[in-house]
Amino acid sequence: MKENVRVIIWGPGAMGGGMAKMLLKKKGVEIVGAIGNRSKGKDFYEHIGVEQGNHPDLKIGSVEDVIKPGVADIVMLATDSFTKDSFPKMKLILENKMNCITTAEEMAYPKAQSPELAEELDRLAKENGVTLLGTGINPGLIMDLLVLVWTGCMENVEEITSRRVNSLSPFGELVMHEQGVGITVEEFDKRRAAGKMTGHVGFAESVGMIADGIGWEVDKFEQDMEPIITEVDRKSPHGFAKAGNLAGVNMTAEGYVDGVARIHMQHPQQIEPEQVGISTGDYVFIKGSPEVNMSNSPEIEGGIGTYAMCVNMIPQVINATPGLKTMLDLPCPRAIMGDMRDRIER
Amino acid sequence: MKENVRVIIWGPGAMGGGMAKMLLKKKGVEIVGAIGNRSKGKDFYEHIGVEQGNHPDLKIGSVEDVIKPGVADIVMLATDSFTKDSFPKMKLILENKMNCITTAEEMAYPKAQSPELAEELDRLAKENGVTLLGTGINPGLIMDLLVLVWTGCMENVEEITSRRVNSLSPFGELVMHEQGVGITVEEFDKRRAAGKMTGHVGFAESVGMIADGIGWEVDKFEQDMEPIITEVDRKSPHGFAKAGNLAGVNMTAEGYVDGVARIHMQHPQQIEPEQVGISTGDYVFIKGSPEVNMSNSPEIEGGIGTYAMCVNMIPQVINATPGLKTMLDLPCPRAIMGDMRDRIER
Repeated sequence: MKENVRVIIWGPGAMGGGMAKMLLKKKGVEIVGAIGNRSKGKDFYEHIGVEQGNHPDLKIGSVEDVIKPGVADIVMLATDSFTKDSFPKMKLILENKMNCITTAEEMAYPKAQSPELAEELDRLAKENGVTLLGTGINPGLIMDLLVLVWTGCMENVEEITSRRVNSLSPFGELVMHEQGVGITVEEFDKRRAAGKMTGHVGFAESVGMIADGIGWEVDKFEQDMEPIITEVDRKSPHGFAKAGNLAGVNMTAEGYVDGVARIHMQHPQQIEPEQVGISTGDYVFIKGSPEVNMSNSPEIEGGIGTYAMCVNMIPQVINATPGLKTMLDLPCPRAIMGDMRDRIER
Repeated sequence: MKENVRVIIWGPGAMGGGMAKMLLKKKGVEIVGAIGNRSKGKDFYEHIGVEQGNHPDLKIGSVEDVIKPGVADIVMLATDSFTKDSFPKMKLILENKMNCITTAEEMAYPKAQSPELAEELDRLAKENGVTLLGTGINPGLIMDLLVLVWTGCMENVEEITSRRVNSLSPFGELVMHEQGVGITVEEFDKRRAAGKMTGHVGFAESVGMIADGIGWEVDKFEQDMEPIITEVDRKSPHGFAKAGNLAGVNMTAEGYVDGVARIHMQHPQQIEPEQVGISTGDYVFIKGSPEVNMSNSPEIEGGIGTYAMCVNMIPQVINATPGLKTMLDLPCPRAIMGDMRDRIER
């Protein structure tokens, strides 16, 4: 019998916990370690809110307790959004000769904004004979890889629009705050001017991946964020937006090729879009030959989509040649309904 | 300067000619040979109906004239639908140490129906250090790879429906005949009983690729073909169906997993579907967590979709490790808008 795939969860929050719960239901894989700063010392299963069942005892530990050479096949890192914040953690994982998948949005295509760190990570991964990937639902699939797959049946691509219209209603208070739900327009302007409205992280990465993927050179990249002002009161489980205030934000970006805006990203995020007649969904429109006019409605929910993408890419990452990879380099993502060991080429 | 990617076209008909016309517009690639039985000796450009422009002179040759060790990086084989018919040609290509992409539908997942030939092809490819791939729009993308990509963001997959509703109106007389357009129900029954209604080739391959891709074991596979009887007269450029006769055929298939039909394929093909209120399109519905409810309407046209998929996979095939590959093994298809040489890892 082949050995189980051994996984460490670094950051047992919503994403790391989601991955863990998914992994615990799969065959041929086991969680051999968990790292959490705030949750250190706690029982892992209790912390993520799942029955231990037949799974071995597991306490959440510190980095020093858990990260040791080759104790796992792969570390799932779910702690940051930005490459520079997650860099020291990834460095440590690679130097301990373990593969790594991270949810850090910028890591989906790190050379877009941190080319030097990307080179250093590639060097470290190769030196240690392991593989590193950043992925998730977006960036990682909906607004980049899926677009590229559609171009795969095209002779000529002229203009790409990727639109993701989602509802923030399922999310908690942190997201309500981050996306400015319920704040006044004045407050939004103040926060934006102070650089305190992060919004969606990933447009530079998605545009970079699409452009490099098909061979376009982007000579200008622009990103914008505008308030979505509601005309009626909107209420979601964790948010409330009074008429005249923000129900969310509309993020857009453009990638210019030869001076023409050829890649358009549209990503409005708000609570209760249905209340004002807005359908949610994922859309890909591509002008060229042939044309693509795709919709998936409602949209794939961001939380489950992200942790499922990370888990489902484990075999591809373990099987890959060493180095920093992107979704462009690996075989396509797909669900794992059988034994994970059957996917691993030893 | 890096050398151009060198391509041979074997079978300069609708598909091979389409690939050639597409390749002639791309950078960093050149057509160095063409093989045609019926068109031998003819000028290649004239035969496929395109201006020669600055491209070098090229006459269509015989197999013996054109296939010589390593004279091209890749041979595009567009002559057959079935693995056994294309086998001797692929064998010759591999033995002459050239990579190969074929449009043969069964070659999209040859182990579904010809596991022994698939093994032999894999052995031959490895022995000669080259790579072999079968692809196209369907099988190859719409009813299999695209479905798999969507499962990539899923935690759990319960049931898959892939539906491709297309119009036969753009096609010529050969397709009208093959799909039974205009024939009576009696004629259809007679032809079907005699095994002379081929219809769509690819369901066994698509179902096999999906099941293996996510780790389901298919314990039963069923395929059916029913006449689409028109209630009104329908007329297309090359077809005519009188009311009461066939406007086309509806092909369906089911893949059973643990005794339950979990993979459904639905592929009605007919002339003038709009005339009776039927919208054409490509659809993916997946039950599970999360759910997928995708449509692309109108459908991707089969001809351009197939030759574009083949051309766009050239870099992935040249870069791959030796052996017989499927779309499951290689990085995702994507358009080539830049120089093809930039994609080749020498």
